[in-house]
Amino acid sequence: MSDDDRARGDAEDGGYPNRNVLWAETLVDELAAGGLDAVVVSPGSRSTPLTMAFAANDDVDVFSILDERSAAYFALGRARRTGEPTALVCTSGTAAANYHPAVVEASQARVPLLALTADRPPELRDSGANQTVDQEKLYGSTVRWYRDLPEPEATPRKLRRLRTDAARALAETTGTPAGPVHVNCPFRKPLEPLEVEGDVPAGWDEGDVRASEGRPGRAYVETAQGRPTLDDGRLDALAASVASADAGLVVAGPADPVDVARDGYAPALAELGATAGFPVLADTLSTVRHGEHVAEAPILGSYDGYVDELLDAVEPDLVLRFGASPTSKPLRKALAARDVRQVLVDPAGEWRDAEFVADALLAADPVHVARGVADRLADRDRPTGTDRDATVERALAMDEAFTSGVADAREDDSVGAFEGAVLADAVANAPAPATLVVGNSMPVRDADRFAPASERDVTVLANRGASGIDGVTSTALGAGSATDDPLVYVTGDLGFYHDMNGLLSLSRCDVDATIVVVNNDGGGIFQELPISEFDPPFTEQFQTPHGIDFEPTGDLYEFAFERVPVDAFASAYRDAVAAEGSHVLEVGFDAAASHDARDAVTDRARERARSASETR
Amino acid sequence: MSDDDRARGDAEDGGYPNRNVLWAETLVDELAAGGLDAVVVSPGSRSTPLTMAFAANDDVDVFSILDERSAAYFALGRARRTGEPTALVCTSGTAAANYHPAVVEASQARVPLLALTADRPPELRDSGANQTVDQEKLYGSTVRWYRDLPEPEATPRKLRRLRTDAARALAETTGTPAGPVHVNCPFRKPLEPLEVEGDVPAGWDEGDVRASEGRPGRAYVETAQGRPTLDDGRLDALAASVASADAGLVVAGPADPVDVARDGYAPALAELGATAGFPVLADTLSTVRHGEHVAEAPILGSYDGYVDELLDAVEPDLVLRFGASPTSKPLRKALAARDVRQVLVDPAGEWRDAEFVADALLAADPVHVARGVADRLADRDRPTGTDRDATVERALAMDEAFTSGVADAREDDSVGAFEGAVLADAVANAPAPATLVVGNSMPVRDADRFAPASERDVTVLANRGASGIDGVTSTALGAGSATDDPLVYVTGDLGFYHDMNGLLSLSRCDVDATIVVVNNDGGGIFQELPISEFDPPFTEQFQTPHGIDFEPTGDLYEFAFERVPVDAFASAYRDAVAAEGSHVLEVGFDAAASHDARDAVTDRARERARSASETR
Repeated sequence: MSDDDRARGDAEDGGYPNRNVLWAETLVDELAAGGLDAVVVSPGSRSTPLTMAFAANDDVDVFSILDERSAAYFALGRARRTGEPTALVCTSGTAAANYHPAVVEASQARVPLLALTADRPPELRDSGANQTVDQEKLYGSTVRWYRDLPEPEATPRKLRRLRTDAARALAETTGTPAGPVHVNCPFRKPLEPLEVEGDVPAGWDEGDVRASEGRPGRAYVETAQGRPTLDDGRLDALAASVASADAGLVVAGPADPVDVARDGYAPALAELGATAGFPVLADTLSTVRHGEHVAEAPILGSYDGYVDELLDAVEPDLVLRFGASPTSKPLRKALAARDVRQVLVDPAGEWRDAEFVADALLAADPVHVARGVADRLADRDRPTGTDRDATVERALAMDEAFTSGVADAREDDSVGAFEGAVLADAVANAPAPATLVVGNSMPVRDADRFAPASERDVTVLANRGASGIDGVTSTALGAGSATDDPLVYVTGDLGFYHDMNGLLSLSRCDVDATIVVVNNDGGGIFQELPISEFDPPFTEQFQTPHGIDFEPTGDLYEFAFERVPVDAFASAYRDAVAAEGSHVLEVGFDAAASHDARDAVTDRARERARSASETR
Repeated sequence: MSDDDRARGDAEDGGYPNRNVLWAETLVDELAAGGLDAVVVSPGSRSTPLTMAFAANDDVDVFSILDERSAAYFALGRARRTGEPTALVCTSGTAAANYHPAVVEASQARVPLLALTADRPPELRDSGANQTVDQEKLYGSTVRWYRDLPEPEATPRKLRRLRTDAARALAETTGTPAGPVHVNCPFRKPLEPLEVEGDVPAGWDEGDVRASEGRPGRAYVETAQGRPTLDDGRLDALAASVASADAGLVVAGPADPVDVARDGYAPALAELGATAGFPVLADTLSTVRHGEHVAEAPILGSYDGYVDELLDAVEPDLVLRFGASPTSKPLRKALAARDVRQVLVDPAGEWRDAEFVADALLAADPVHVARGVADRLADRDRPTGTDRDATVERALAMDEAFTSGVADAREDDSVGAFEGAVLADAVANAPAPATLVVGNSMPVRDADRFAPASERDVTVLANRGASGIDGVTSTALGAGSATDDPLVYVTGDLGFYHDMNGLLSLSRCDVDATIVVVNNDGGGIFQELPISEFDPPFTEQFQTPHGIDFEPTGDLYEFAFERVPVDAFASAYRDAVAAEGSHVLEVGFDAAASHDARDAVTDRARERARSASETR
């Protein structure tokens, strides 16, 4: 509701044609006042009051997406990129159930998402009424908060409660941990702004339901989310153990969006590593691997390929872990295999270490911890023990050696094409700044291994909470919608197929993207698993070649579709990124051959890293 | 598991390479022995033991579908067509959440569906492990039964419990009411049939876990689902009130698939109407509107267009209602507006009357009630009161008059094109037998109004449980996969778009279909609602024109795509049905014009029905 609308509402008797309009406009007004700036709406009838209220509100951008599964992932992508809540509106019935996959991802990855599902009024529930399903607690344990709103009514008490609910719902999405919130919104007909005599009392004054007069456009309820912080004694102790360690590492796993949204997450972790003399193993999804801070800190980005050699060289006795469980399975396994003290820092106190080897769990804000320790190290707890500068230099040399080893192996014609080359090129040649979204299964693993650290401003994102291959296209386009940064999205063919519907948002939601499809005709990741030795059923039930020719998608969704060989990829990619509009580049691979080449390239580059370690 | 495999398992020491193989093969063996004959598998790693066990079992057809949302709707469609359970297998994570929309529909529409979701073992839950989400009670209140299987282990007690669980899970899908069941299946690595020394004890004998020797290939657990039946006294009373009524109606709403699967559902309702002299208002989804029994009974199929006039003519004082709440809103409203005794018959005792005007609810098997009453009427409780033959004749004359009125109106060039003509033609020209699936929103409503009763063997289905527009393509193809009957599927453009992924099953699952897309570029149903008077936001947020040119889908999914004008539809449709392979026919409409023409045609035909009533 804009101020003009409110003025209208206040000026006229009653002001609102019926209680549903009053109710929905109040809800949306409170959300907008609380900072909500985007909503993804799917068309439907029961949600009419909400849809109209959002459409009339100038402070909230409205995206219209037809497929609710894609809609939810689009909202997720936007919220993931910004760390700020994005709302969803849908009608009653299976529409709401289509949000479930994205709600699960939002829960796992701590993405602030507010699902507003319209519902039938209570008297129609469990009555066989059309399109009436049980939406109560529809998403079960995955949401941070659930509220079934009462029946709309124009009483000050109910309207006050509504504003409280709206403010709390929004706040809970960015609590600790951040995540999805579900507000179920029953409405009784008429759903349209038809005049209902007496539905809103004559002389209804919005002032009745506000805390005080004279605050037009302000939220009735203010909220602020506190963050858990450690006391000085605990930080002193942690700094002391860092200072006295023989050697150590910082592991920066996939970052929580709400942490990133606050100032200085990546710089704080980088500074901790630099001050402590601990190499920082920066996950591709950590936001620590890329950016200006890389110039000032020992950031490693290729460790996935040589992590055993790295641990042999560094010999850490202390590991400080931030973020979610690392994308790199070799890293997780290598840490688990060693007798090294590991400290997890997680604001929500969740035990994000599925190897169960961590020795300490600090439920605290990561920036507060990292800065607290770095400050203490700089001030008084200067590290002792072995020469940490030498350790850092050796680790950085190994990282560079691995990267150059990969580059050299790619020059060798005897090594075949492998998908990781596409990820390496996509990151290295991305515009800066850029939002770069990578699909699950192999793209994110290849980015983790083959896209080295850089000072370029590239934000790499993936749906790594639940690691589904569904909805990633919409996630990418939602992320792209959030900023003016160019959007690049790299996906496998199954991921591209799974959310083909999401491509409609290119035109409907006005997002330009460069999309790269790494096409190996099926589940290439299964080549990495023992099941590949059992055929049948390997080909038919696991590899599952689909044989889809994706070229017609260009006509369907109005973008330029181009097939490029891997050798020509980097150049075609740069052209596509530089050009106007959206482009899809498809690069074809044989899954088994790519798998073998990936191993061969890794082996060679790892050998380089080992040599670099020994010559130091 | 085939008998050969079991022989191998019994013959060798241990027989199974590891506990997961033993566990999954036992589960699948029990399901197959219990009658399960189809499973829809989506590729994934955690589900490997289940996928391999199903692939190795000759008694269960395996369909491989990549998008889990489509997979679940395909299984739903198959189960809806057969009334027999269909199983689903997926990996852990968001894959399982993608089943949720179809699980909701299965719950509302009482479709037997068995979701087997693979999961991580208990020690990995809530640990940040990759692709590990909270799958416990994932579908909340929508499933008939939920079971989190214990960790696989080769002990007789656990294996006995596993067979019990499998048998019960399958049985619960066809209980009262039928519906979805969720079995969560944790597995620990190795997931492949790799040899694990000692995992299955040497000398493991499957006989240990079976009730008795000498029953190879038989289920360990037998199950039978009893059905609620009324006692003779209650049936006597009901028959007596039918006999003594002045006039009455039978309302056959959308049928439950498990009722239809049992012999004689439609004939029993038809016979009840014929014996009682009660016209039968047969919903397009009742399975009563079409079939041989129509020759012998007063079946009305066009009442949606003239129901007020019908009730004026019949003046019923008793209405017997079977099935779900009728598709026809005019019927629901007309019944609610009259002072007439209404008796609901529902085996599950659910109050499927959202107008809350029913006077009695009989929680009993519909065939048992219908036959019980018909038999009593035939034997001793012959109807009295007004001349029921005359009433029946008048009602049939009105129905025919409406139908011929529609046909005549269509001949008049001053009446524009309307979408209902496509539904009328699609049903009238369908092959017989045929499975005919109609989309939600307008297609099902148009079929209900414009596809009259006939003696042809056409089974009309829709997702009318929750009335979603999602997943209907996969539902249709699943229904088509269930029998040798030709498949026809009529959908709106939004429904076609929503489950475009489902079209892949045409080739992957080897289903031939004639698909008709009624394309009015957006949400035509909103033309029927008051919101159409409010623009903005009507066009942008409700009508939501997408402008998609669907022709490239033919190249993408390898079928013949043809655009036909409404005048040429019937002929193109007959050709498509007669031809080999799959065909998509798109018929374009202007939503607002079609809406107006629909009203105009209905008004004219209704006037005919009124006249027919008066001339009798």
